[in-house]
Amino acid sequence: LDNLLLTEVAYQQVAPRLAPHSERLRVLRMQADGTLKLGDRTVTTAQLPVHLCWLSGDLIDSGSVAEFIGAVMQAEDLRWLQTVTAGLDHPLFKALFDRGVRLCNSDAQAPAIAEYVLASVLYRYQQFPDRVARQQAGQWQPNDFREIYGSHWLIIGFGNIGRRVGRIAQGFEARVTGVKRIAKPLPDADLIISFADLDGHIGAADVVVLACALTEETRGLLDARRLQAMKPGAVLVNIARGEVVDEAALVRVLDSGHLDYAVLDVFQQEPLPADSPIWQHPRVLLTPHSSNRGAGTPGRGLALFADNLDAYLAGRPLRNEVDATFF
Amino acid sequence: LDNLLLTEVAYQQVAPRLAPHSERLRVLRMQADGTLKLGDRTVTTAQLPVHLCWLSGDLIDSGSVAEFIGAVMQAEDLRWLQTVTAGLDHPLFKALFDRGVRLCNSDAQAPAIAEYVLASVLYRYQQFPDRVARQQAGQWQPNDFREIYGSHWLIIGFGNIGRRVGRIAQGFEARVTGVKRIAKPLPDADLIISFADLDGHIGAADVVVLACALTEETRGLLDARRLQAMKPGAVLVNIARGEVVDEAALVRVLDSGHLDYAVLDVFQQEPLPADSPIWQHPRVLLTPHSSNRGAGTPGRGLALFADNLDAYLAGRPLRNEVDATFF
Repeated sequence: LDNLLLTEVAYQQVAPRLAPHSERLRVLRMQADGTLKLGDRTVTTAQLPVHLCWLSGDLIDSGSVAEFIGAVMQAEDLRWLQTVTAGLDHPLFKALFDRGVRLCNSDAQAPAIAEYVLASVLYRYQQFPDRVARQQAGQWQPNDFREIYGSHWLIIGFGNIGRRVGRIAQGFEARVTGVKRIAKPLPDADLIISFADLDGHIGAADVVVLACALTEETRGLLDARRLQAMKPGAVLVNIARGEVVDEAALVRVLDSGHLDYAVLDVFQQEPLPADSPIWQHPRVLLTPHSSNRGAGTPGRGLALFADNLDAYLAGRPLRNEVDATFF
Repeated sequence: LDNLLLTEVAYQQVAPRLAPHSERLRVLRMQADGTLKLGDRTVTTAQLPVHLCWLSGDLIDSGSVAEFIGAVMQAEDLRWLQTVTAGLDHPLFKALFDRGVRLCNSDAQAPAIAEYVLASVLYRYQQFPDRVARQQAGQWQPNDFREIYGSHWLIIGFGNIGRRVGRIAQGFEARVTGVKRIAKPLPDADLIISFADLDGHIGAADVVVLACALTEETRGLLDARRLQAMKPGAVLVNIARGEVVDEAALVRVLDSGHLDYAVLDVFQQEPLPADSPIWQHPRVLLTPHSSNRGAGTPGRGLALFADNLDAYLAGRPLRNEVDATFF
């Protein structure tokens, strides 16, 4: 019998998918107050060691996140963990991976994030605030607009999210260059280059999308020099991690007018401090680390966990299982 | 020798592409004041009958549109006309077609219009005004959003523009149904239906895009009954012609909250009258018949004319030549 740890909230949603495994699983439900339930009984992980775990999205806003993470850290018999996150930069994951725990990250947010990227670039290209102002003023006056058609996109990090952005941008007939650790041809891009070749391509892109994991290789990747090397009038979109960009240098390159616009969902410090010049910058559209919040994300995340649980129990390969190259 | 009629503005742009045909063409350039020039000489179409014609985009805002159209109407020897427009509902075109003139419409605006459609739906789905208001207020507060992923799109009229919308929407993993006069499988749609089957499908669509020509079949197509049959919460986008929709019925169905939103680039009367309730409707985004005004449209239009002129003079097939089914 395997012991599965998840939150009460997650359990309420996934219960129908767990029912077929009732002979194989003990389901340990962490309550909002940090206590653990097995059926009606309050239990502890000392009594029932955790073997499997679903780190679900509701945890982030719950009161028991510290207890949950603590239980995972101490679970010496943990064999598999499914996380709701795409990025694995939280130190927990590396520690678990090094202990031999099988880890699956999530691609459930990829459609939402990709739509956020396209929506934001189109919002800037088509100047919606101008359109709305003219409508409100009753002015029958057209506005010309930039097109994605024929534009060059450089997508730094070409995992689930980057590839989906590339696929959609190709639907618009953009030319897509993807940046990966190891350059090899992939669908959804016209060209894949390695990080080592970034400097040869960054000046050609109309749109640069940061979609990479935060690693020692990507921390500070877009520094002052590379920001200045970007194409004049380019748009930057960061849905990766704030630490990938030198934020102070970004503000300078926006102030100078060298870049047209930055769409930022992530920041070096979150929440973004109240005194940051980014809040009111006329060339910035910012959102509070929420590009994943499409209506379909929770359902896709639940299906991913449940499908992977089925696969784990049947001894089949898992979807989105990470390997050493992630860290 | 063929006599080609175009505007002076169009000539200035396309001159390098005409140079190779100098032995075959006399180029008649209509000036802003309505006079006609051949080289430095002022001429008339009585002296030099028009054989070929480019009806270019600059005409719409020029002072000589009446003279130009008049010259075309009277050109009894006209053999081919390339128009900048996608729609051929202006009576001029039917009259020319009936006289045996070969007509080519334009697909140059299709990328711009398709991007306008996607941008507008994403603008509504992702609630950009809310995002911007929170940013301006310094509020770190996420907004959930609808996704195109998994949504159903009904694209009424599946020509150059409709197909491009379908292709891009499929890139987002939307399910696309195209409506054509004759239903036969086509790329860029999961299903093609005929106008006769519209009523069986209109209630399933999250997004309905009007991209059809204005014909006797499509005039008043979206009447009060069909608007009411649309899916609750659906979004309507009209980049076809205002007359395809019953505008008064649309306002009622928006007032009732049955539809979530309408994106309107065309109207029964243009410019939209100042007293129309559409201007200030909270569920309408309107633009002044300008969804075609992407930065690439003029260049693509010029290339289309010049390529078709090359083809015409070489006796090769023309791109976008229309047949009787257009009228």
